[in-house]
This record gives sequence, structure tokens and C-alpha cells, in this order.
Amino acid sequence: MPSAQHPLKMEAAALSAFLKQAFPQFHGEILSVTESASRVRHQVSAEHLRPGGTVSGPTLMTLADVALYIDLLSKIGPVPLAVTTDFTCHFLNKPAAHTAIEAEARLLKLGRRLAIGEVYLYSEGVENPVAHVVATYSIPPQEKV
Amino acid sequence: MPSAQHPLKMEAAALSAFLKQAFPQFHGEILSVTESASRVRHQVSAEHLRPGGTVSGPTLMTLADVALYIDLLSKIGPVPLAVTTDFTCHFLNKPAAHTAIEAEARLLKLGRRLAIGEVYLYSEGVENPVAHVVATYSIPPQEKV
Amino acid sequence: MPSAQHPLKMEAAALSAFLKQAFPQFHGEILSVTESASRVRHQVSAEHLRPGGTVSGPTLMTLADVALYIDLLSKIGPVPLAVTTDFTCHFLNKPAAHTAIEAEARLLKLGRRLAIGEVYLYSEGVENPVAHVVATYSIPPQEKV
Amino acid sequence: MPSAQHPLKMEAAALSAFLKQAFPQFHGEILSVTESASRVRHQVSAEHLRPGGTVSGPTLMTLADVALYIDLLSKIGPVPLAVTTDFTCHFLNKPAAHTAIEAEARLLKLGRRLAIGEVYLYSEGVENPVAHVVATYSIPPQEKV
Repeated sequence: MPSAQHPLKMEAAALSAFLKQAFPQFHGEILSVTESASRVRHQVSAEHLRPGGTVSGPTLMTLADVALYIDLLSKIGPVPLAVTTDFTCHFLNKPAAHTAIEAEARLLKLGRRLAIGEVYLYSEGVENPVAHVVATYSIPPQEKV
Repeated sequence: MPSAQHPLKMEAAALSAFLKQAFPQFHGEILSVTESASRVRHQVSAEHLRPGGTVSGPTLMTLADVALYIDLLSKIGPVPLAVTTDFTCHFLNKPAAHTAIEAEARLLKLGRRLAIGEVYLYSEGVENPVAHVVATYSIPPQEKV
Repeated sequence: MPSAQHPLKMEAAALSAFLKQAFPQFHGEILSVTESASRVRHQVSAEHLRPGGTVSGPTLMTLADVALYIDLLSKIGPVPLAVTTDFTCHFLNKPAAHTAIEAEARLLKLGRRLAIGEVYLYSEGVENPVAHVVATYSIPPQEKV
Repeated sequence: MPSAQHPLKMEAAALSAFLKQAFPQFHGEILSVTESASRVRHQVSAEHLRPGGTVSGPTLMTLADVALYIDLLSKIGPVPLAVTTDFTCHFLNKPAAHTAIEAEARLLKLGRRLAIGEVYLYSEGVENPVAHVVATYSIPPQEKV
């Protein structure tokens, strides 16, 4: 399994502050940001549930998208115009009811124009992942000063 | 382009009622349900926006998931345990700011165990789609009575 | 359903000649190239079959990749360095045994750096598609002369 | 990262024999099959090349499909009717020219009806992967004797 490492341009604290400003509607928590991966945790509340008390698919996809965005920014710095171009999610196991979700995101490729990463999503404390995501981000050309 | 038709087991009104009960947090509106496709509209409010006033990717994916679920239920009836197993979204064009999103969903295959469908998402009144989704639903075995 | 039209920069005959040179191992036939879509046909021989006489998944994916590449080149001209960056295939119905496959490819987006398209694959003469593909191509920056 | 283990129902030698019979056109070599992953190697010859001497995308996808099928069979036994239902490939780095490709495949989920797995593809001896695949297989109901 690949384990590429990329030097950090932003640490967890700076990312939290950036996120709070750019995405005030996101209420997750950055657990860790390293050269190889980022971990994000999202408390689950009533609005994220499907019938049966389980977490909805779109809630999982939202968390994965944010976690990968965080991991990307930690390696390229605060480029707010990086946008998702494709996003593929496979739902693997039913999330545990009323349990927070953790996302572990890392980059498979960090190019000049495109970054591709994958995310495993877990119900907190459960070993088997609930979902897997792979997605591409388009990185806008940086202006030279 | 394929244009399969499947007899309706639920009409738009029944689907709206079902949705309101099963997914109270969803605030979209079913525009039409036919044998070949379903159209759903979602008003965009502040919580769905990214910086710049555009609609966020997860908001688009949520709407696509619901629209395809509606189209599926219209053909198989109220089976609440049908679940998404994979979901692939390509983001095509930046959504218009502060404009409602419309989803047009239809099934590419309706099998006994799996249904596969695709969704085009549009900013209301704009010709080019903002996103395309293809996804699979797993249909639980129906108990024979 | 979207129906974007893009002016042609290469016609079917020029594309056939280009393909024969760049991909001598491809033995398909371009049926038509228009401003909205391209159709390609691939005769099926023993090497493409799975047990049971049906066409293998990789054979379908190969044809879809070529068909979309042809449709892209017809709109941007002979840029041999355009490369696939992601490729998602859903297998819908078992292909008819010993029957040629037809691909219908069209672009969902033609940007300056990325093009995204979709392909429906059919067993010749059968209405329901056997597979659906959506894929992204990265277009290298063109040198200005 | 998940590391699920599943007891083996077929070892590498039996898989090679099965493959030789069911897919005589496949010329790869099974390097290893364990409870957590399978590794397959594919020599690259002229027919698999794109202009520039690099391995074509469809060649990579074919190898990934076979590698995941092998890993699945090693865990469920010789079920020839297991079929791919979706297949998503991200192309990460240009493969090294004239170099064999290795695939490392493992299951993310092994259910009764569906199995989902992922594959990393490498140019032999190169650390960064050239492609990543995630795919679903539908497992036909087993007849009880």
C-alpha cells in the first residue's frame, strides 16, 4: 500500500481556523494532520440520520469531502479555489447508530494541476470501515508574484 | 441514449408523503415522476453555499442521491431499505450563485437485486449541467407473503 | 438530458487515420462523428470472450475508452498527450454472445484543462445498454506558436 | 487503513490453474495470495503500449480487474459467475516504459451478495503507484445441495 509523505504547509490549528471561516456550516473536528494522512471526526446528530438511527450516505460523503480537502490544503496551503472534480464513494458497512464518524484521508497523488486522494470512513471504535472514497481535486494555477 | 420505461408503482404525491416521513430533513420538491425519469428541485439556502455564493459539492451529491432514490421508489414501491452501494459524481460546471438546483434522475438498469441510475444536475434555467452522478442501489430481497 | 454541441476539428476519416497510426492494436471502426457524439463499433473475437461466450468487462472498458478519446479528439484536434485521469464503468446487462459492441460517446464538459464524457455501450441490435462509462481526460497545455 | 483478513478457500496454485482454464487469454502471474491481499504481475509487451512506450490505460484496468477477481476467488472459492458490477480507476502516474506491472488487490468488504475491493497498480520496482482501482463484484446466490 502506498505511503507517500508530503511536507506540511499548514498545521491542524491553522486548518481549523481556515475551515471555520470558509465553511462555517461544518462542525467537524480535526483530530490530526501529518505528512501522510489527516484524520477528522464528525459528531452525528439527528439531522444526519436515516430511518433506523444510522448515518445517511450524504453525511458520510460530506465528511469524506471535507477530510480530503483538509489533507490537500495541509500539503498545498490555503488555496480556497481547489475544487472537487470527481468523487466516488463505496458504502461498505452500515454505520453504528448514534456513533461519531471518523475519516482518514490521504493523497494518492499530488500533482501541479490535479490531486487524487482516498478516504476511509469509520464508526468511532469499530474496526471495519463504513465507506471508502476516492476523489480528484483540481488545483488552480498559482499566480507568480 | 437509452430510454427505458418502467411502470410506476408510486406517483409523485405518494412519494412526497413517504419522503416527508422517512427523511424529514429533506426540503426538496418533486417536480415530476414518469415511467422514464424523475425531476426534483432543491431551493438553495445559505447553509449550502461555498465561498463565492456557489452551491457546495456535498449539497449537489445529496440532491442527486435523493432524486435517484425517488426514481427508484417510483418503480419498486416504498422499500425503505434500498441502500446506495456506490456513488460517483463528476462536477462539470460551477453552479449559478443563489439559484435553485434541479435534478433529473433515471434508471439505467432495474434488476431484482441491483438498480443503477444516473442523474444530471442543473442550475435552474441554465442549459449546461453542473454535475453528473451514476450510482447503484442494492434492493433487499422482498419477503413473499 | 444535456445535448451540448462542439464544432468538429477532425472528421471520422482523419480520426481513423490518426488512430491507425497511434493505436495500431485497436481494430474498431468509427461509425460516425458529429458535433454531439461519436459512435464506434468493435467486432468481438475469441480473445474478448468470458466463459459463456459473453464479452469480457475489460474489452468493454477498452472500447469505451477509445470511443471517448475519439469524441474528444474530434473536438480538440490531434492532441496525442490527452490522458485519461479517471474512468468509472457500471456493467448493466450481460452482452449478447458473439455480437459486435457499439459505443456511443459524448462530452459532458469540454474545458480548457479537463474534458468529461460519458459512453453507453450496446450489443449491436439490442436496445438496453450493456454498460455505462463516465471518464475524465486531462488536456495538456497547448504551446503557443 | 483497514486490514481485514479472510480465510483462504483457494491457494495460489489452484487459482493459477483455474485462471488458465477460464481465461486462457490472460498471461499474468500470481505472485502471492494471502488472507489480506493478492499480488499479480503482468509482463508488458508491445500490444499493451501507448505512444511513448508507456502502458495503456485499458491494460492497467484489465490487470486490476483480474487481480481483484483472484483475490475474491481466493476467499469465496471457484465461483465463475461472480461478475464486476462497477469499476472505478484513477490514473496517478505515468507507468515506467517497458516495465512489468504489479497489482496488489484486497477486499474492503466481503458480503453475501456483494464484494468490494481496491487495487494499487505499480510499475515493478517503482514506489509511487501508477493507478488505483475500486470495484464491486456481484456474487450469485449459491445453490444448496
